[in-house]
Amino acid sequence: MGFLADTPKPPYYAVIFSSIKGKYDKEYEHTAERMMNLAGGQPGFLGAESVREENGCGITVSYWDSLEAIKRWKDHTEPPGGKTKRKKRLV
Amino acid sequence: MGFLADTPKPPYYAVIFSSIKGKYDKEYEHTAERMMNLAGGQPGFLGAESVREENGCGITVSYWDSLEAIKRWKDHTEPPGGKTKRKKRLV
Repeated sequence: MGFLADTPKPPYYAVIFSSIKGKYDKEYEHTAERMMNLAGGQPGFLGAESVREENGCGITVSYWDSLEAIKRWKDHTEPPGGKTKRKKRLV
Repeated sequence: MGFLADTPKPPYYAVIFSSIKGKYDKEYEHTAERMMNLAGGQPGFLGAESVREENGCGITVSYWDSLEAIKRWKDHTEPPGGKTKRKKRLV
């Protein structure tokens, strides 16, 4: 599997998650990682691209066929405590 | 200026540009770089985040206040030859 996600023709939706590793608590990082691991099994998931530099700066983009699929993914994977911190990036 | 763009409250818009350095011709890479350099001076530009790993995989996300601002940016900076290749990521 290559780096570039094999996305279909638009329209589709993207969730952008930008973070600096080590800047947040371990639980937060673990939750973010778990969410991405679970994404692959969710209905409507189209693919993902993830990059992290050695300085800790990282961007992960996941692609989805609908806003409903994104909502299901969030509801399915996110514990109540994680919501506020990540909200900004989940558009 | 930190890595994370200081974006306002949603809604706003994102342009995601994923690429592997060295996989495209030099002209393409140069155009992409020039587009990002010019973004800062465009009306409606809210910020950008960019990450590239040593293996060449990179993601650049720019944030905009409207779809019109994105269109103006594209029209302003993009030569005719670049359009097809980049279209997929400009949603």
